[in-house]
Amino acid sequence: MRVGFASDHAGYELKERLMAWAEGQGHVVVDFGTDGTESVDYPDFAHRAAAGKDSWERLVLICGSGIGMSIAANRYVGIRCALVTCGEHARLSREHNNANAIAFGQKLTNFARAQSFLRLFLMTEFDGGRHQARVDKIDGGIGLG
Amino acid sequence: MRVGFASDHAGYELKERLMAWAEGQGHVVVDFGTDGTESVDYPDFAHRAAAGKDSWERLVLICGSGIGMSIAANRYVGIRCALVTCGEHARLSREHNNANAIAFGQKLTNFARAQSFLRLFLMTEFDGGRHQARVDKIDGGIGLG
Repeated sequence: MRVGFASDHAGYELKERLMAWAEGQGHVVVDFGTDGTESVDYPDFAHRAAAGKDSWERLVLICGSGIGMSIAANRYVGIRCALVTCGEHARLSREHNNANAIAFGQKLTNFARAQSFLRLFLMTEFDGGRHQARVDKIDGGIGLG
Repeated sequence: MRVGFASDHAGYELKERLMAWAEGQGHVVVDFGTDGTESVDYPDFAHRAAAGKDSWERLVLICGSGIGMSIAANRYVGIRCALVTCGEHARLSREHNNANAIAFGQKLTNFARAQSFLRLFLMTEFDGGRHQARVDKIDGGIGLG
């Protein structure tokens, strides 16, 4: 699977470790930056990853808390981003929401846990059915924009 | 403060309990439904709460996992919704992201914890400064829509 990665400085270390792990699992990784621990603005990297969405099937976004990245990514109709802090979240985000992006907070989720959540996220299939109708309604609502 | 509430059936019970708590704290609560445990589609209630955004300063959204609600709410430029599963998340969502909406998963967060996170969310001020510049960039990016 092609897996995109983007982070700010506060998520850089976790991004590098998860990218290496994903590559080791045989995934094609696409790195949208950042490329170090110098202070940057998380929306810049969310926007970059969104602009490059033809190059990935799943996207991993990391900042200090994961919150900023998840807000920015979900501005895009083509992205359904779940902020994940437990295995149940990782599984449900795929089964019920057909999420194609996962956000982590490096301050809140260590590498071992993030890796296990990402593994679940990558291996779990969408349930479809009534959940598809709900996913369709996310972007079929009133007052978008 | 005027606090809006919306949930699907899977978040109904937690919505009712948090609404009663918020009212007891002196907040004005605005209920966007749902009004029972009959199966409904979470995006309908996220859209309703978004359409009524002139009537609240803070919004609480609840579904089974919180994920669907947080994705749907963040489609709206006027809403910054944080899916919160710990006190640190609640605090950071206000200090760094100026979040005006908070999502909970009734399956994952019990009433006592959700209440303590909501209390933190309602009492914490935005830090502004460099965080304001980042928040501004969320909606200033490329390729929105």
